[in-house]
Amino acid sequence: VIRMPLSERKLIERIRRSARGGEGVVTGIGDDCAVLRIPSGHEMLVTTDFSIENVHFRRDWHPPELVGWRCLTRGLSDIAAMGGEPLAAFLSLAIASDVPQQWVSRFLKGLLKLAKKFNVPLAGGDTAQSKGGIQADIIVVGSVPEGKAILRSGAKPGDQIYVTGKLGAASAILKNLQQSELSKSKQSRAKRVPVPIIRQLRPLPRLEIGQWLRERRMASAMIDLSDGLSTDLDHLCEESHVGAEIEAEGIPRARLGSAKSRSAKNPVALEFALHGGDDYELLFTSTAELPSKVAGVQVTRIGRITKTLGMRLLGDDKAQRLKAGGWEHFTKQE
Amino acid sequence: VIRMPLSERKLIERIRRSARGGEGVVTGIGDDCAVLRIPSGHEMLVTTDFSIENVHFRRDWHPPELVGWRCLTRGLSDIAAMGGEPLAAFLSLAIASDVPQQWVSRFLKGLLKLAKKFNVPLAGGDTAQSKGGIQADIIVVGSVPEGKAILRSGAKPGDQIYVTGKLGAASAILKNLQQSELSKSKQSRAKRVPVPIIRQLRPLPRLEIGQWLRERRMASAMIDLSDGLSTDLDHLCEESHVGAEIEAEGIPRARLGSAKSRSAKNPVALEFALHGGDDYELLFTSTAELPSKVAGVQVTRIGRITKTLGMRLLGDDKAQRLKAGGWEHFTKQE
Repeated sequence: VIRMPLSERKLIERIRRSARGGEGVVTGIGDDCAVLRIPSGHEMLVTTDFSIENVHFRRDWHPPELVGWRCLTRGLSDIAAMGGEPLAAFLSLAIASDVPQQWVSRFLKGLLKLAKKFNVPLAGGDTAQSKGGIQADIIVVGSVPEGKAILRSGAKPGDQIYVTGKLGAASAILKNLQQSELSKSKQSRAKRVPVPIIRQLRPLPRLEIGQWLRERRMASAMIDLSDGLSTDLDHLCEESHVGAEIEAEGIPRARLGSAKSRSAKNPVALEFALHGGDDYELLFTSTAELPSKVAGVQVTRIGRITKTLGMRLLGDDKAQRLKAGGWEHFTKQE
Repeated sequence: VIRMPLSERKLIERIRRSARGGEGVVTGIGDDCAVLRIPSGHEMLVTTDFSIENVHFRRDWHPPELVGWRCLTRGLSDIAAMGGEPLAAFLSLAIASDVPQQWVSRFLKGLLKLAKKFNVPLAGGDTAQSKGGIQADIIVVGSVPEGKAILRSGAKPGDQIYVTGKLGAASAILKNLQQSELSKSKQSRAKRVPVPIIRQLRPLPRLEIGQWLRERRMASAMIDLSDGLSTDLDHLCEESHVGAEIEAEGIPRARLGSAKSRSAKNPVALEFALHGGDDYELLFTSTAELPSKVAGVQVTRIGRITKTLGMRLLGDDKAQRLKAGGWEHFTKQE
């Protein structure tokens, strides 16, 4: 109804100049569709993920490069969770008229930096005017040898549960930002988390370890940690029709440096590692005993799959029922 | 930052229940990625298109079923413009908290009705909270035999230019709606375009004719008419490094029934057929003489490709320079 052909066109031109063809991209930006070639004997993977201003990020908190980087991470992490290889990315970007061109340039810079790191061409997308704020939808297309995708539905009772990396950094930092904003509004001294710490939040999608697990048929089920451990484990259990026991002490917690003394790093509270989202690590199940490091990334056993449905969190001397996004104390020990 | 896991989950469940697997969909909604099988010897097509409230539609004007239908049309029409076959659709949907559930149900109903018509499974997507209004991004994946996609870049001087169907209905009706709103705000009698006419606006993506042209190698270049004839022809000329001459009288104009006498149908003004968007017909070039009807759809020759760059509109006794989205009168005849 209301259109901005000129600035849309500028945006397309900018993306087009930044985008590079890859070997799988026959025709990229500039036609009705992109044309891609899938390696023979492979199936195709497709994933889409929104990054929405004031839902997934805030312009006053997150540097635009970080928003762009994390936007693409969301898609690549889903490809990693299938054991797949990314082939091309597509970006649908809606921008309100009050968003500075500079913001868009820096957003694209961050996105393309990660794309280059994993050799993923930006092969198309759409641009539009938004009636408020920024909405980005990232689509990543990948491939996996036929029948070899690692699904959420393959976990069996007795399988061990593993996670890559360390958990809880993203949500702990967000909480800090929210609290410092609250204290600011109460006229007390603002405790903004310094930009260097925000800049640490550049999650690397775990593509290499996903492929490593797929090639060795070492994972019976896998999911990426985008919603938080408890929620994503719940998804995996639901799809596999199993339950799970998690050892609280076993969960690898991220350590954050404080603003004053960068050397003193404290692990985040358990609730962030357990329920916080946006870590983009992998959660997988396996009958095998995994090495503690794969492709340079820490791998930690955190529990096991059970026949009994539901999730339980095992502590020092008690068990709690674990629910997606929160947990309830049992009245008696189990 | 702020999440609505419960209602998002409800939405996913609703989409999941509505969605059906297709023969190409190995794994659909419910995993990190969808897994698709591409027919052997085929390349993959990917297209993404936003449908944004108050940009592409208005909630007070467009019935939700129509918004859903047109949302998917945008994607399928791009597949048609490559001569391809759709394989699966993905929907990323962001909804503000004040949007009634009923609106979402009716939107999905319209989208899935068109999906069923063309046997395209809804195989995944994303859902999110929006901070205002509705943003939908449709992704359609299709396939085409290797090397056979009809691109925008293949037009040669001397090729004839054709369009399918009739043009200008969507933009003419929008103009009516805008004018009746203006007159309404001036306290004069509102002239709302009646719902039956809006309901006529259910464009059918021209998949069959696109495939017909590709199978017979009859089209040298093709694009779908989403931005308007003058703008889309300009895109095609730019990609093919050619110019074009269009005969004003030759452009097939849509006829709209008036509210009072549905029998008296008048063709829309030339400017709507020439510059109005959202028709979702195909524009293609060919050295062949096409039949006047293909797959039940009218095919009309409207001009020819020229070596001289730029577009010209030929009238009764004069030629005008034709520009994307508007035209300028020449001071002298050519």
